[in-house]
Amino acid sequence: MSKMRRSERIVRLTQILLEQPHRVLSLTEMADKLSSAKSSLSEDLAIIREVMESEGLGTLETQAGAAGGVRYVPGFRKELGLQYIQQISEILGSGERILPGGFLYMSDVLGDPILLDTAGKMFAARFKESGADYVVTVETKGIPIAVAAARYLSVPMVVVRRDHKVTEGSSVSINYVSGSRRIQTMSLSRRSLPEKSKVLIVDDFMKAGGTVKALIDLMKEFQVEVVGTGIFMSTEEPQEKMISGYVSLATLREVDEQARQVEIVPGTYFNEEE
Amino acid sequence: MSKMRRSERIVRLTQILLEQPHRVLSLTEMADKLSSAKSSLSEDLAIIREVMESEGLGTLETQAGAAGGVRYVPGFRKELGLQYIQQISEILGSGERILPGGFLYMSDVLGDPILLDTAGKMFAARFKESGADYVVTVETKGIPIAVAAARYLSVPMVVVRRDHKVTEGSSVSINYVSGSRRIQTMSLSRRSLPEKSKVLIVDDFMKAGGTVKALIDLMKEFQVEVVGTGIFMSTEEPQEKMISGYVSLATLREVDEQARQVEIVPGTYFNEEE
Repeated sequence: MSKMRRSERIVRLTQILLEQPHRVLSLTEMADKLSSAKSSLSEDLAIIREVMESEGLGTLETQAGAAGGVRYVPGFRKELGLQYIQQISEILGSGERILPGGFLYMSDVLGDPILLDTAGKMFAARFKESGADYVVTVETKGIPIAVAAARYLSVPMVVVRRDHKVTEGSSVSINYVSGSRRIQTMSLSRRSLPEKSKVLIVDDFMKAGGTVKALIDLMKEFQVEVVGTGIFMSTEEPQEKMISGYVSLATLREVDEQARQVEIVPGTYFNEEE
Repeated sequence: MSKMRRSERIVRLTQILLEQPHRVLSLTEMADKLSSAKSSLSEDLAIIREVMESEGLGTLETQAGAAGGVRYVPGFRKELGLQYIQQISEILGSGERILPGGFLYMSDVLGDPILLDTAGKMFAARFKESGADYVVTVETKGIPIAVAAARYLSVPMVVVRRDHKVTEGSSVSINYVSGSRRIQTMSLSRRSLPEKSKVLIVDDFMKAGGTVKALIDLMKEFQVEVVGTGIFMSTEEPQEKMISGYVSLATLREVDEQARQVEIVPGTYFNEEE
């Protein structure tokens, strides 16, 4: 490839960095790829960092030395997060979404590519320092959010199954009592998590926290450390949860079946840093 | 915000475009956002398009006129796809992955953020002209791939459930006979797909095609049109499938339990265009 102009290099570098968040990319390899001097790349990266920081998109971390590299660490602005929760609240606030039993239909929200991506970015920004090696969720509705969070954290995503599957090999299973007082099972392939890993638990919805607590118990069986819990939406009631320290994007305050009203407010994500 | 320099605008524009594939973005709005003249933006976009096309990342489509806009259409190079299948083949080719019954453990591949993202890009590039309004999959293992494909096609993703859930509202259910000759159920919320939509079906694995055929039958109940079927991996045997015209990234030619060998070759994705 012939030598690129600065503006061309910047397109390519921006693309390479955005596509691989949290990966340390070697300056030497990038210089080869773009047929450019490392000194030019450093100037380009300074420009990219400046824009990313001023736009609240995150930052670039550079490592000096022979093994010098650069890493894009996605960030997220709190005010954009509040706009996002406002948007979620408007979408879900429509009375038409209330299902018999006071459940809320939100599968379409969890299937929307932009809404999902934003949730993933928010969790990745919040847990960027957690050291998580894996994002863990339980099937089914938590999976899309776990995929989005894992993408922006650049770690693998692991799905706990509701029952043991032949395609998972030998598994560890636990039983637990769900919010509806039924005995349920969770099962995870032995191969999926190496001992001493750090995991971030992600799920779509949490009421009392029985499912998340069971996930935490299952993680103990694998001798891995839970470094955080990210929930898309938690309910305000019961206030006493079975777990502590979770981070929720939104809080479901009320579903009034009679009046067909739903109230959603920003979650613990927006509390002052503990 | 003060006026941006060209290189700064290019970082921002590249980021905005990459984050929202297939969306028509208004030039007027972008000019406002970046405090720049539309004529400068047009020059920037020409540079971005040139790099994207020369790198095989896709293209930019511009629409002239008062409602002028620009749209990033992701592309994917066939030779990169072949490298990808080679990589998948090496990862999955290890004999340690063969499970009792000749099943292949591949949950970690479907959980890897880069491998997943690449599969999504490949499907999005292949089906970019399909007009799909939705990506549809069935739980569980197809979901991550469906999320990735839907992200790059910028359409919502819909998950068909294995049984009827209270959180889905009124649903349409069908029964079908699976490859293992068991009667299975699929269920999809009535709200999830408007009539006359176009859907792309995505799944992780296909043997004879019974599950995909059932998905296609379910789609008929919703009066939507199936415009394509994308499979991560299909098996070579049986050669006679229950569906036709599917696009698979990889073909599983053989799992030899005795010799602990697995053979994976490029799928129908790489056939000459029909």
